[in-house]
This record gives sequence, structure tokens and C-alpha cells, in this order.
Amino acid sequence: MANHRVVIVGGGFGGLNAAQSLRSASVEVMLVDRRNFHLFQPLLYQVATGGLSPSNIAVPLRSIVRRQNNCQVLMADVVGFDLTNRRVHLTNGDVPYDSLIVAAGAQTGYFGNGDWSNRAPGLKSIEDALEIRRRILSAFELAEREQDPIRKTALLTFVVVGGGPTGVELAGTLAEITRHTLKADFRRCQPADARILLVDVAPRLLGAMPEDLSTEAQDRLARMQVEVRLNTRVLRLDDAVVTLKEGDLTEVIAAQTILWAAGVEASPLGQQLTAAAGLIAARGGRVPVGPQLHLEGHPDVFVIGDLAHAVDGDGRPFPGVAPVAIQQGKYVARLIIARLKNRDLAAFEYFDYGNMATIGRSAAVAQLGRWKFRGRVAWLMWLFIHLMQIVRFENRLLVLIQWAWNYLTFNRSARLITDVGRRESASNTEPPVSSSAPPCSP
Amino acid sequence: MANHRVVIVGGGFGGLNAAQSLRSASVEVMLVDRRNFHLFQPLLYQVATGGLSPSNIAVPLRSIVRRQNNCQVLMADVVGFDLTNRRVHLTNGDVPYDSLIVAAGAQTGYFGNGDWSNRAPGLKSIEDALEIRRRILSAFELAEREQDPIRKTALLTFVVVGGGPTGVELAGTLAEITRHTLKADFRRCQPADARILLVDVAPRLLGAMPEDLSTEAQDRLARMQVEVRLNTRVLRLDDAVVTLKEGDLTEVIAAQTILWAAGVEASPLGQQLTAAAGLIAARGGRVPVGPQLHLEGHPDVFVIGDLAHAVDGDGRPFPGVAPVAIQQGKYVARLIIARLKNRDLAAFEYFDYGNMATIGRSAAVAQLGRWKFRGRVAWLMWLFIHLMQIVRFENRLLVLIQWAWNYLTFNRSARLITDVGRRESASNTEPPVSSSAPPCSP
Repeated sequence: MANHRVVIVGGGFGGLNAAQSLRSASVEVMLVDRRNFHLFQPLLYQVATGGLSPSNIAVPLRSIVRRQNNCQVLMADVVGFDLTNRRVHLTNGDVPYDSLIVAAGAQTGYFGNGDWSNRAPGLKSIEDALEIRRRILSAFELAEREQDPIRKTALLTFVVVGGGPTGVELAGTLAEITRHTLKADFRRCQPADARILLVDVAPRLLGAMPEDLSTEAQDRLARMQVEVRLNTRVLRLDDAVVTLKEGDLTEVIAAQTILWAAGVEASPLGQQLTAAAGLIAARGGRVPVGPQLHLEGHPDVFVIGDLAHAVDGDGRPFPGVAPVAIQQGKYVARLIIARLKNRDLAAFEYFDYGNMATIGRSAAVAQLGRWKFRGRVAWLMWLFIHLMQIVRFENRLLVLIQWAWNYLTFNRSARLITDVGRRESASNTEPPVSSSAPPCSP
Repeated sequence: MANHRVVIVGGGFGGLNAAQSLRSASVEVMLVDRRNFHLFQPLLYQVATGGLSPSNIAVPLRSIVRRQNNCQVLMADVVGFDLTNRRVHLTNGDVPYDSLIVAAGAQTGYFGNGDWSNRAPGLKSIEDALEIRRRILSAFELAEREQDPIRKTALLTFVVVGGGPTGVELAGTLAEITRHTLKADFRRCQPADARILLVDVAPRLLGAMPEDLSTEAQDRLARMQVEVRLNTRVLRLDDAVVTLKEGDLTEVIAAQTILWAAGVEASPLGQQLTAAAGLIAARGGRVPVGPQLHLEGHPDVFVIGDLAHAVDGDGRPFPGVAPVAIQQGKYVARLIIARLKNRDLAAFEYFDYGNMATIGRSAAVAQLGRWKFRGRVAWLMWLFIHLMQIVRFENRLLVLIQWAWNYLTFNRSARLITDVGRRESASNTEPPVSSSAPPCSP
């Protein structure tokens, strides 16, 4: 008899952990991803701000599973599902499965304002990170040759939308770069004068954290001269102009660089899957699954990670964080193995270790179970936990060296403006605000 | 009196060394480059083959000269020169100069076959390197899901055109990757079976080297199963098909990946400059300059490095290598300083330290003065000299660690297929050879 075929769509935290947990099972695993690497998303903001290189936080999937003989990797685009005949449709060709694990994750969501994506890029992929890096660094280059003071101010204004961990990390790192790293690099513009705003519609930052840690993060950002605007929403987004609304007050801010960390929505594959199963998508396009993480009526089709909408015993949805995806990946692998032995497992339960967010140099907040940490201690914990998680030894070592160097010297060596980033932004290479500037007559 | 204004176009080896050599002079230096970084081109092939990351071999220009108070950096595109009024035209704006140093370098040249550039990318920029990396790695990914044996063979055939140092390095590293690094990564295709051809029109490789070292390099490549085709020229280049001609024999080879290391031509700025000065361009569009490296009739306009056509006392042109550019940059700086003191300098002389090329793991050839080296000794020399030259301490350390790791483990960690590379290749993401393949029905 042929082995049980497990197809896993997506090589992120959920999919990769599922694949690796099937290591010793007598199954054939096929891990399908449109990229050839696993991306350590929690450190993506470090690439966006020039602290790390893409290859520091991305590891080829093939090299991760090279010794796992029951696992194949296929780099391909999934375009649909045939749940009746148990096949995954690829751009060209089909893959049959006995069990399917869909872990396609989430993408930046603009709450229906899709045209905002080029005006305020999100941070979900290597390309996103390189595009944001290009925009941040280009803003200073343009400011250096700008003579009109109003335009110069707009070039040195950065707005981060979204006060979750990613927004806090971006705003904090921007403050660090401008106040320290770039200080001596420019002759005619003062990066240290850059205005950095962090905007959130909620009444506090880091909503998943205890309230005093939110306050701590806000204070810390204020000390780094980041303007935190709470209870504030983005009313309009135009090219290099953002309109904010706080209560009855509306404010228009000219900002060359606007970054979006305000929301995610499920991968479009979620829609395919809910349609194929005759279900109704949950909030943000997520796919509703039962307590054992499979589709209703399809016990052989699992959805995990950011793509899934699963709830705990009290009916609360699990948060869209890496530990949930990791634990769900391992759970589904165990469930598949159990079923092959004609056993069953109890419902998935999430063990919540806690929450942490870094703000900048030696500054972080963390809540682990009943304990709370802040400042340098929290930062070292954050550093340690993230380094330990980076998949392979080599990357961990290089990342540590790079970080140590950055920490000691305030330097960030990956400050390259390369002509990469998302294709749709090709027309945006020279930002509009500077188009008529007479830059240089010293 | 205002300081003497020196404008340097290009932050490569020539321009950067000129700027740094003017450190203590009472001049105002403006270093103009369209990129924000200095690129260590000799190691670009390591990025193209996944051994190093872009930021390992590129350093922001601003951070290199941040402590040089008489030097400004301007990231801008130069579009022309007004030699009469002494101004450099930028995309938007002008920069005036008292002395001008043009060091805009060279780009990949196709001997009039411009349409070959997308079929066989050259290796002159970070984008080039990432595009080549994407093509090489994608070829294996496509081969893994290809079932047609003829198409599979084409996917696993790599042709490197040009047997100079870059071509030898690319072919040697390709052999290393396929024979070692990727060996265990794939399940259905055998990277070790990849066919690698190195083609050159000359009767031997590494024409600048002594003949016995050329033979040594050729033998070494043959032992790594690289087919070296000498006295062979490229008759036609089509998408994934190359037609070779050796004597009266014509051979058509289907190869998904064709890389071009066969020639360079001067930056288009050379044409602007020769036209502005009323001169006739030299071979490859280079700008002819006199023994003091300035334009005839324009003692205030210097051209150095790959863009310049200068000859030594015996009328032989200087080779297009980094040491020439470096020495010319330093010479011109000294000449400008001398002139400010109403002194003059003798003609530029090139001190030739020698030549080296690396072939692969522990294999290189080197000729230093009267001495010749080969094998591991030459490789260690090559490593040492190149590391010492990488501009900053941090990069040197990271590059060394990365190399040591690669050497010990046969690994190459920067094997990411990112959706970057040159824009014109956007349509080429899915190579044509596989378009109708039914890839997967295990």
C-alpha cells in the first residue's frame, strides 16, 4: 500500500512545524510554497530598517528538510483546491493528497482600501522589507538635496500606522536610525530632526499586552521623540499625504514615507478554500475550522496559523502570532499520526507563553505568564528568544554578530538602496514631492 | 576665497579612492553616484551564487566618508556635462566644479547585440547578481518538477560565456554548488548531473595570466566537470538556446541559464563626455585621456578607471581592473593637490602587482610579479587580499565568517529566490522552456 500523502501548503511557522513533526511518521510529505525559503517574520522589521540582510532571516526550505527523507519541497503557486477528488491545483499541474494542511498565512490588509498599498507599504515579505528600506533611505537622500523647507519637512516626516508590535518596532527603530545611525552621514539635512508619528485607532499601544506595559512602551517612544497618536484613525491616504482624524479633529500631514502596520487579512487561498468547502469566511477572510482544526465536513483538510479562524474553549479566537501557528502545526501532525493508528486526539489547545515587543536599543516590554518585564531585561529576553528560534545555527551566529555590532556602534550596515522591491512600485522610484526641486547649487 | 570644488562622478574604486585621497586637501569634494553604496565588484559572483549577501560586499558611501568633513555625497543621476561653464547636469539640477573626475565605470557589453542582455545577463551590479542567483536557483526548482527528460536536461544546462576571471569564477562556483551544496536538496533531479559549459573565443582562459596558469585553471575546471570550450564563439543567443561556433562546426545547445561574462563597454556617460569635448571615443566607448589622465584641451576634467582609455609609456592601454582605477584615483587626487600649490606631476604610471583568479574551493591561480602560485596557496592569498580590501572592518569579519562556514560545510546560506532583479526581466519569471510541463503527479 502506498504511504499516506500529506500535502502542506505554505512553509511558514505553521507549515514547516507540521512538516518537521511528521519526520518519523510513515507518510509522504509534500511541502508546497511559492517561495523557496522559510521567512522568520518577527525580524522582518530589521531588514526594513537596514539592520539585517534578507538571508539573515530567511532559510531555504530545502536545506531545512534536506535530511527528512519523507519530505519533498515543491516551489509552486497553488491556485485552487478540489476537496472532492482530493487534489491541490497548481499553476501547471495537480498534486493529490490524503491529508491536506493549508498554512498560507496572511497578507497586509487595508480594510477595503486596496489602493493604499503603494502609498503605505506593509511589512509581510522580503520584498516589502526591501521596498520600505528603499523608501526610508531615499527620503534622506532626497532631503539632502532639497532646498524648499516645506518639501524638506515632508521628506523627513515618517508616519507609521498601527500600534501593534510591528508598528512599535518600526517607529522605535526609525527613531534609533535618525537620532543615532544617520546623524553624521548627511551635511545639509539633519536626520535627527526627522518627525516620526505612530498612529493607532485604539486608546493604547500593544493591545495584547497588560495596560502598564502599553504605557511603558508609549513613554519609551516619547523619550525617543516619537509622537504617539492614539484614538486616531487614517481618514485618507494620498501620495505622501495622510489625513488623520482624532475625535472631531482632522489633521493633514505631508509625509514622504508612510508605513502600514495596521492590519492583516487572510491569504486569498482562504477564499478558495471556504468556497470549495461551501463555508462562509470569518473576519478578515480567515477560514473557520473546528476544535481539531479541520474544515467542517472535511476531516482531511486542516487549516492552521494566520489563515485559520479557530476558537478556544471559551469561544475566543486564537491570536495571529507565530506560537499559535507553531503549536497548531505540531498538533495537526500529531493528529494525522494518531488517526493512522486509528486513534484520536482531544481538541487543539493553545499554550500561551506570553507576549513581547521590542521598542529600540535595550528597550522592550514582555509579559510571560504572570510576570512582566521591561527595559534592558525584557530586551535581552526578546533577543535570546528570537535568536533561539531562528532555524539554523549559522544564521543565528551571523545575526548575533550583526546585532552586537549594531548595538556597540549604532551602525546598521545593510543600508543599501537597491532597485528592488515590489514591482507595482516601479513608477515610484523618484517620489513625487521632489520632482520639481532644484537640488544643487552649493 | 571659496575652496576649490572637486566633483567626482562615481563611487567605485576610482572615484572613492580619489575622494579619500583628497581628505586633507583644502578642497570641497562632492561625490555623486546614482547608488548610495560602494560595491566591491570582485566578490559580486559570490552574491550571484548565494554565498554572500549584497550587504556583505556593499557599503553605504556616506558611512565611508562620514568623518571626511570636506566631502559631501550626493545620490543623483548624472545626465550630461557642460565643460565650458564647468557644470555637471543632474536629472534635476546642476553641480558646478573647478575640477571634475569622471569615474563612471563600465557596464556589460554585448558587442552590438543589445537584445542578448535579457537572455544572458551580465554581472556588474547587485541587481544583476540577484537576477543571476534567481535564475540559477529557479532552474533547479523547475527541474525538480519537470518530467520531460529533454526539458529537464535544458534546465540543468548552464552556459557561461567568457573565460576571463569572472567567467572562470562563475563556472567554478556553479560546479561547486551543483556537485556539493545542492546535492541533497532535491529528490527528483540530480543537481550533480548539471552540465556546465565555459565558452571563450580565445585559445585559452584568463588571457591576462601566464600560459601555464591558464592551463592550470582549465585542468582544474575539467576536474570539476566543467566543459571548457575554447576558440569558440557565440553565433546566436535565443531564449534558453545558444548557438556556438568552433571553426567550421556549429552546435546548438538548449540551456535554461546562460550567463554573460564576455565583455564590458564604457558607461554611457563616456559618450556624453567625448561628445562634449569634441573627441572620438576609444574601443568600447572608453574616453581617451592623456598621460595625466585628463581630456585633451580640458586639464580640469579627469577620466579614470574602466571609463578611461589611457596608455602607458609603450602605448599599451591599461587593463580594466580595480588596481588601475584605485591608482588612478589616487594619482588624480595628488595631481589636483599639486596644482593647487602650482606644482605639477609626472605622467601616471601603473604599478602592476599581478593577477589572480579563483576557481573554486581551495583553488586559485595567481601571478605576482615574477612569482606564480596555484592551488590552496593561491586561494588563501586571494582570500586574504580580497578580505583586506573590503572597506570596513565589520563587513570583513562577516564575510570571513560566512566564507569559513561555507568552506567547512559546503553550504551557501544566501540561496533565496526573491522577486527582484532587473525590471526588464519581469516577464521572464517563469522560464519558457517549462511552460507546458505537467509537473506533478506523483
